[in-house]
Amino acid sequence: MAHQQLPDRLPSQHSQTLPDGGGPPAHPPPSAVPTRARPQRLPALGGSAPADNGDTGTSASMNAEAYDATPPLGGTAGEVLTRYLHQRAAAFLRALSLRGGNEAEADALLRGSARRIGGALHIYAPLTDPSWAEPLRTELGWLTTTLGREPQYATRLARLLSALRRLSVAADEPAVAVGGAAAPAPSGGPLALGAARAGALLERQLTLARTRAHSASLQAMGSSRFHALADAIAVLVSEVPLAPAAAAPARTAMPPLASQAYRRFADAAAALPLHRAAHPYNADAVQASLGADLTADLQDAPWHQVRVLLRLSRYAAEVARQDGDAADRQRLAEAAGLLERHREAAESASAVAAAARTPRIAPATAYALGVLHADQRHEVEAARFAFSRLWQAAIPGPRGL
Amino acid sequence: MAHQQLPDRLPSQHSQTLPDGGGPPAHPPPSAVPTRARPQRLPALGGSAPADNGDTGTSASMNAEAYDATPPLGGTAGEVLTRYLHQRAAAFLRALSLRGGNEAEADALLRGSARRIGGALHIYAPLTDPSWAEPLRTELGWLTTTLGREPQYATRLARLLSALRRLSVAADEPAVAVGGAAAPAPSGGPLALGAARAGALLERQLTLARTRAHSASLQAMGSSRFHALADAIAVLVSEVPLAPAAAAPARTAMPPLASQAYRRFADAAAALPLHRAAHPYNADAVQASLGADLTADLQDAPWHQVRVLLRLSRYAAEVARQDGDAADRQRLAEAAGLLERHREAAESASAVAAAARTPRIAPATAYALGVLHADQRHEVEAARFAFSRLWQAAIPGPRGL
Repeated sequence: MAHQQLPDRLPSQHSQTLPDGGGPPAHPPPSAVPTRARPQRLPALGGSAPADNGDTGTSASMNAEAYDATPPLGGTAGEVLTRYLHQRAAAFLRALSLRGGNEAEADALLRGSARRIGGALHIYAPLTDPSWAEPLRTELGWLTTTLGREPQYATRLARLLSALRRLSVAADEPAVAVGGAAAPAPSGGPLALGAARAGALLERQLTLARTRAHSASLQAMGSSRFHALADAIAVLVSEVPLAPAAAAPARTAMPPLASQAYRRFADAAAALPLHRAAHPYNADAVQASLGADLTADLQDAPWHQVRVLLRLSRYAAEVARQDGDAADRQRLAEAAGLLERHREAAESASAVAAAARTPRIAPATAYALGVLHADQRHEVEAARFAFSRLWQAAIPGPRGL
Repeated sequence: MAHQQLPDRLPSQHSQTLPDGGGPPAHPPPSAVPTRARPQRLPALGGSAPADNGDTGTSASMNAEAYDATPPLGGTAGEVLTRYLHQRAAAFLRALSLRGGNEAEADALLRGSARRIGGALHIYAPLTDPSWAEPLRTELGWLTTTLGREPQYATRLARLLSALRRLSVAADEPAVAVGGAAAPAPSGGPLALGAARAGALLERQLTLARTRAHSASLQAMGSSRFHALADAIAVLVSEVPLAPAAAAPARTAMPPLASQAYRRFADAAAALPLHRAAHPYNADAVQASLGADLTADLQDAPWHQVRVLLRLSRYAAEVARQDGDAADRQRLAEAAGLLERHREAAESASAVAAAARTPRIAPATAYALGVLHADQRHEVEAARFAFSRLWQAAIPGPRGL
């Protein structure tokens, strides 16, 4: 197939290449084409998908559901990959059209689609033209990172306020309703007062960060860089620049690449200190949490890396329809959820440590932040424990070998 | 048997009642009689008994070893109880004679003997004259509490400094030797500086508390109250004021009392939230650690109570030679060790919270104390977890029923 340098095209240049040709330009206005192309998908969007579901890749997301309807690995590898990218690109454009309504939901769909397109281009790189795919992946990475910050700050703040509440209120006391922005009530003496102040401090800092991230998102979405990217995605709906290797049958060309992605993940997971982490209360994650700032990062990095590799492996399986049996799929989804919990706890602990460096905070506030920091590091340890137990109990065999 | 009001007797009044009559007065000087009565026991005292072994009752202590040599439950209940009390009283007096040498070791033996005498008098109360036993138990309780404080502060300080070191130093950094009084080296930025300051603060406070406890111990040991107690113990070497029930055969009279002690412990243990505690990383112990000061105490109290009941049950078994099989004994010893760990962690966490209330501490210090507090509460949770797993895995059946 022909290779096109897409990122610098204008919307009007390729609007005629959309599958249901003759419609209005894909973007702007972005709403018309994808909505018409798949009107039956719209009801699902009003459902229960959490604001950050696209972030975790853990739940059977809307994207994954839609793809399950296609038959497995018919035709050439290029056809299978193209079909996948078409659908993700359509979801991306549909998400753009939805931003006027529920922005958080639309952004989650946008990020999820962008990550899947980028992941598929990464795993199946030998099937596509690298001079087209690599710049596109870079742009997709920029978009997901930029759009991902705001929901991350929101999740982090909710997580930390909920933890502070748990740390402040005895189990049998009537708990304050979660979800409100209120810090824990200072009902229990100086320690509880410190907890309330720590909550207020975290709220100020993370809300500010969130507001800035929101502005950055808006700015990014209005930038010419984004428009170029959206154009490139719109082209994906019709046409994918493939490499000669894509002419091979999907059944022979794709499984080795998906298996390679899985093996990279499994090898990285096996290199984790799983045996140690599977021992409850090993206190590894809290180790050195008062030491140099880098020690926690160094300790967490291999786990974060495994999280990314697992996500890539799951996307690869999605493309190649190589999900293994239901139990395997379930286990991988759980593992992904645990690694996501690990990341959230680790980043929350870092946010607490950063808040503790605020000048002129009261000792009681600092104390509460210290308790919260250690609590989040123990959540890190708990997530590692659960992952190790899950992973050691039944390691799914490498698939497609 | 005759009942004597002993606490107010003078040493010289009963020195002639010692088993190897004609020796020097039992006290003072207290060294001669017990040393001559059981000279073969002395070498063990120079051994590896930790300073607080008498506190925990977990290891097969020197006291317990000695008693294992006597035949099980021969004669009347009174004879068996008397034999036990004789030996504990002899150990008590021997400990007095050793205070000039290794004071910590001698105190541990003193406390261990006093606690065992008090425990035996409590469990086997129906066998002794209550108007004699109850005041004696009160005095024994006073002594063990008074003497127990100094080693507790020492253990607590060592525990907290070691935890701070663990929290400050990455696993692969060369760890500072434990045991020295030095706080963690401030090598890792502001957080590590806070840890160093927190260590110095805890060291100041707990060393002061320890010094005060030491003075209180010395004062207690020189008081007329202590001399009266020592006299009462010296009488135990020869004679125990028994109740009529003690004339029954030991085989029928003692096991029900020992079983009752065991049942009290087992019932209290069964009432603990074991199911919940056996779930790793339940975060129960850290719950409300920033709340009102009382919440942690309320949560810990049932566990502390079980610890005391287990100790009493183990003493009762020691007297009645009703230890169950070796596996049972091992399990109970482990359970006692875990409950002791629970107590130490809980009290260490309280000490950290108290230190955090010091006026005018730096925020970084308060932060480090907060991390340390949460860490110790997680140690509490870890001890509960281990106890629950141990206890639910194989509950030893009630013995002697």
